[in-house]
Amino acid sequence: MPAEKNRQIAIVELPQGKLSESHFKLVESTVPEPHEGDALLKVRYISLDAANRAWMQGATYRDAIEAGQVMAGGAIAEVISSTAEGFKPGDLVFADTGWQEFAVLPAKQLTKLPSLEPMTHLLSVYGIAGLTAYFGLFEIGQPKEGETVVVSAAAGSVGSIVGQLAKMRGCRVVGIAGGKEKCDWLVKELGFDAAIDYKNEPVHKALKEACPKGIDVYFDNVGGDILEACLFRMNLFGRIACCGAVSQYDGDAPAHGPRGVPGLIVTKRLKMQGFIVMDFNDKRDQALKDLERWVGEGKIKVQEDVIEGLENTPKALIGLLAGENRGKRMIKVA
Amino acid sequence: MPAEKNRQIAIVELPQGKLSESHFKLVESTVPEPHEGDALLKVRYISLDAANRAWMQGATYRDAIEAGQVMAGGAIAEVISSTAEGFKPGDLVFADTGWQEFAVLPAKQLTKLPSLEPMTHLLSVYGIAGLTAYFGLFEIGQPKEGETVVVSAAAGSVGSIVGQLAKMRGCRVVGIAGGKEKCDWLVKELGFDAAIDYKNEPVHKALKEACPKGIDVYFDNVGGDILEACLFRMNLFGRIACCGAVSQYDGDAPAHGPRGVPGLIVTKRLKMQGFIVMDFNDKRDQALKDLERWVGEGKIKVQEDVIEGLENTPKALIGLLAGENRGKRMIKVA
Repeated sequence: MPAEKNRQIAIVELPQGKLSESHFKLVESTVPEPHEGDALLKVRYISLDAANRAWMQGATYRDAIEAGQVMAGGAIAEVISSTAEGFKPGDLVFADTGWQEFAVLPAKQLTKLPSLEPMTHLLSVYGIAGLTAYFGLFEIGQPKEGETVVVSAAAGSVGSIVGQLAKMRGCRVVGIAGGKEKCDWLVKELGFDAAIDYKNEPVHKALKEACPKGIDVYFDNVGGDILEACLFRMNLFGRIACCGAVSQYDGDAPAHGPRGVPGLIVTKRLKMQGFIVMDFNDKRDQALKDLERWVGEGKIKVQEDVIEGLENTPKALIGLLAGENRGKRMIKVA
Repeated sequence: MPAEKNRQIAIVELPQGKLSESHFKLVESTVPEPHEGDALLKVRYISLDAANRAWMQGATYRDAIEAGQVMAGGAIAEVISSTAEGFKPGDLVFADTGWQEFAVLPAKQLTKLPSLEPMTHLLSVYGIAGLTAYFGLFEIGQPKEGETVVVSAAAGSVGSIVGQLAKMRGCRVVGIAGGKEKCDWLVKELGFDAAIDYKNEPVHKALKEACPKGIDVYFDNVGGDILEACLFRMNLFGRIACCGAVSQYDGDAPAHGPRGVPGLIVTKRLKMQGFIVMDFNDKRDQALKDLERWVGEGKIKVQEDVIEGLENTPKALIGLLAGENRGKRMIKVA
């Protein structure tokens, strides 16, 4: 693939405060040459996730990202040529290709994907978002029929699935999201029992009304003040699944954690547990089977937000951090 | 028991800031008359616990305490007369008698105690302190051989037992306590691997040195800055047993929780779980059997701090909150 160019989004400098487009630039290089054991990949869809921003703050569950590099990011890619064992041209894979049109990676960094339509579902309900919702809710939250489940960033890729799964389990489900439009969508389209618009009402008050029997499971995507408000409404022996802290990624590191830690943790005997989707790799096949069945039966509605063009990736991430998207946001590269 | 007087410590007003002796007063009343189904109790030893102060802040796992009442508190007491089913004169019981010489309580509020010597062990190693250490460490912390366990308020009634239990499990044990004397005692007498004097060294730095392989289990008795410092040293999949927050009981409610919540909870996949000893009542018999065997074998050294005289109870609690005691503090009433 000699003549073709590889367009890439590189990081100019790491953000100190809020992320802006000036932290990125579009560069062109040549398509990289695979070595023995590598596959050459053509990137199809790049996944946008709040965690991308967290990676810029320092080492998390992966190494920190550095200035000068191509921005990291997971994507669906197609194998163009391969000496990587087990991969042949035409195969679809999930990999951390970074934000670019072509990437070269060794076999062990590739996860083979099934072919199914629409392919975008491999990044949403059958991808990290769907599996994160599934494992976080069922393994960490362990909701029982009749319990109350609250989820924040409820209109996002993970939250919108968490709420639907909790409804299937027979729970009262309350979503927290920004703006009336999203809240209406949660209740009218996705079947949530109630939604709280954190941009327009005090969350702690709204929780009192929406959760008359308190909260048994809180699926936390945001941290900060909303986590604090939920802590005060938790029931005895409640579970908090800590999935992310999007409120704290884009800007300075937070000065403090939520009030009520550890006082309420003790008196209410709460369990607060962090997880990432890879912790449950051994249960992945069953989870995918369940999710496919439920999507097929119409029990899970899949919402995607697909933006075209590699050049729009920085703007799309910035928008995601501001809560622009509904459902899973991704970039269609090719 | 007609002529005898009942000396009591009543609450004059609930503390807003720090607790002082002026919040209490010694009053005299007559010995109460038992009704049908009650036992008349003579209080022998009153247990002093940091939780006594937390009860004054509002409802916890028990109702809040109010001004004008006799101060609440658990004690070993002897049955003087009884129409309470299952209790006869001479029986020893544990009950929330409050801070007074005599109390009347119905059968369901009494827990029968075995007779063993010294009786004070029923409040320390075989009482709430020992059982709290046992269940919090083994059930919540779940330490494995070779792991590092850190415990705060390590020279206190619970902490001093937690550390010894963790040593028996084959862990590296680090205690955090106030003052050189206590720290020396932890290492030289109780066999801790290291001790950190939080009053004289920065805890986060000292933890780096004392826990070169990070922390796997943190048994938290204090909350606040020490919890924060430990969070930053926790290993992947570490467990934090939330037992109390003594740093936050005596004074204003804390402005915020520790930094790192929920950020570090997510990236390190930590589990933070609150508990109180009553949650494990079904496993109590086995726990007591284990503790008695280990005390008999000299594997657990029991440290008690017995102060004479009901009138000294307020001062003794205030001193406990300031970290005066080593091991289990109690008042010998009679």
